[in-house]
Amino acid sequence: MIRKLIEKIEQTGAPVVVGLDPSLAFLPQHLIEKAKRRHEEAVYGDDELEIIADAVWKFNRGIVDEIADLVPAVKPQIAMYEQFGIPGLMAYEKTVRYCQEKGLIVIGDAKRGDIGSTSAAYATGHLGSVKIGEKEFPAFNTDMVTVNPYLGTDGVKPFVDACNQFDKGIFVLVKTSNPSSGEFQDRKIDGRPLYELVADKVMEWGAGSMDGEWSNVGAVVGATYPAMIAELRVLMPRTFFLVPGYGAQGGTAEDLKLAFDKDGLGAIVNSSRGIIAAYKKDTYAKFGAEHFAEASRQAVMDMIADIGSVL
Amino acid sequence: MIRKLIEKIEQTGAPVVVGLDPSLAFLPQHLIEKAKRRHEEAVYGDDELEIIADAVWKFNRGIVDEIADLVPAVKPQIAMYEQFGIPGLMAYEKTVRYCQEKGLIVIGDAKRGDIGSTSAAYATGHLGSVKIGEKEFPAFNTDMVTVNPYLGTDGVKPFVDACNQFDKGIFVLVKTSNPSSGEFQDRKIDGRPLYELVADKVMEWGAGSMDGEWSNVGAVVGATYPAMIAELRVLMPRTFFLVPGYGAQGGTAEDLKLAFDKDGLGAIVNSSRGIIAAYKKDTYAKFGAEHFAEASRQAVMDMIADIGSVL
Repeated sequence: MIRKLIEKIEQTGAPVVVGLDPSLAFLPQHLIEKAKRRHEEAVYGDDELEIIADAVWKFNRGIVDEIADLVPAVKPQIAMYEQFGIPGLMAYEKTVRYCQEKGLIVIGDAKRGDIGSTSAAYATGHLGSVKIGEKEFPAFNTDMVTVNPYLGTDGVKPFVDACNQFDKGIFVLVKTSNPSSGEFQDRKIDGRPLYELVADKVMEWGAGSMDGEWSNVGAVVGATYPAMIAELRVLMPRTFFLVPGYGAQGGTAEDLKLAFDKDGLGAIVNSSRGIIAAYKKDTYAKFGAEHFAEASRQAVMDMIADIGSVL
Repeated sequence: MIRKLIEKIEQTGAPVVVGLDPSLAFLPQHLIEKAKRRHEEAVYGDDELEIIADAVWKFNRGIVDEIADLVPAVKPQIAMYEQFGIPGLMAYEKTVRYCQEKGLIVIGDAKRGDIGSTSAAYATGHLGSVKIGEKEFPAFNTDMVTVNPYLGTDGVKPFVDACNQFDKGIFVLVKTSNPSSGEFQDRKIDGRPLYELVADKVMEWGAGSMDGEWSNVGAVVGATYPAMIAELRVLMPRTFFLVPGYGAQGGTAEDLKLAFDKDGLGAIVNSSRGIIAAYKKDTYAKFGAEHFAEASRQAVMDMIADIGSVL
């Protein structure tokens, strides 16, 4: 799968992934009003969560239609759907399917991780398929997924197995972009920070799932800690990075330059709010809420140019 | 919420939680056959995942009906539902509602955790409710949920806030029960294992959500590491423990005795496979697959007696 992602990065010239994280606050009012009207006419219920989920789906579809030719991948954050319960997760699934039909690689930002047998169930649900009799039934079937390493090898291994069995990829949390990520991740063990020990394990897990030059087992490394990105890029030469924290969280193009190798490869940078809620920013306000998707398109083009300028 | 849990433990005399983790392999064949027949008659689809989810729900209901008077709480592992996609998650939600109607406290074993704004969305989906206009719409609405601490304070804080706002509880992973939990959790930082540093933070987070003598912010501490349980019990005097690993994973009643304080309080012990798949064990085979739920009832009574014998 990582080879497929790299090919698409090269085709588009954009090491950029758009985070589809539809907070309630990002949804334009006209989409909610339209969803309400559709539900008044429908027979199958008028639950507010269904109305919001419907608006979420239309919001995503609008954005995806405008950006699908510009970027290789999208990263829906499943929490933003899970908060709306079952209707929200139905919008998640619909979004995953739609993006894949449009040729985008879908990275499910799920940060799952548990004891072995339980991680196997997560891997089945998000990357694999349930085997019933002789037939296979996929559930969410995203292309890649993020994984939490706190439980160690037996909690991550089932995801690696799924990478090999179904040609999928994962990104394991190594150094996250949030302000308190250092509380545990930066603490020194035998003179080295915990995130480096996690990095060692990520390489070990990844060695069993090479896909060309790079491994299907990637790492999440936050743009907000540039010195650590640089150090991890050297430490992990065959590990692809998913880099959150650009834009709204404060990471700049200059900060994340060091996530890339000398060929300009090795990383894909995420932006969520900065793209999907672009129409709410002064820079793109001229588009107006009705044209939120065009604002997102412009914001993606600007982000690609910004990152391109440092590579 | 922790006070409510303790009251129910005292009422039932059972510091025991039943893990509702319905693997495909645990479902009795007759439930699957019945679900198939119902779906042939139904108009709304014949997807295999819906059939399995229907069997899962009937399996859970059968067990809950037999055990609801014996135990204070259940702990559905959401991964086991997520693997079956949307139909699986609908069975999860149905199970949560049914258990709550039966008076059981429901601990959603979700091990969620992310950056602040994302953890807030998880807390909304699992413990709180979405605010739309002036009204509140709960989604999964479990009573307690497990949380992963790898991202530090800002990833956990939104769950603590939800505890305070909605009278809920959480259990943060401190020392997990799986074989490779020591890979990171046991590594020494300034002479102390990482799990102790996490324990320090759990106490700090928990101080802001006291509910009587104990905090709504509990800890997951595996029964498979008895020496560490003993040490953590002393270190964390006001932190309630959720103890997985009893039975199928190898932890014995003797091992987990030290999870309790001198009053026999302070912990609740989980068993999943050992209870819900009891009918597959030699000891309970006499019940037969048709009577899986009675086998579970007997297994719960035996577990309560076993744990009672060491307290």
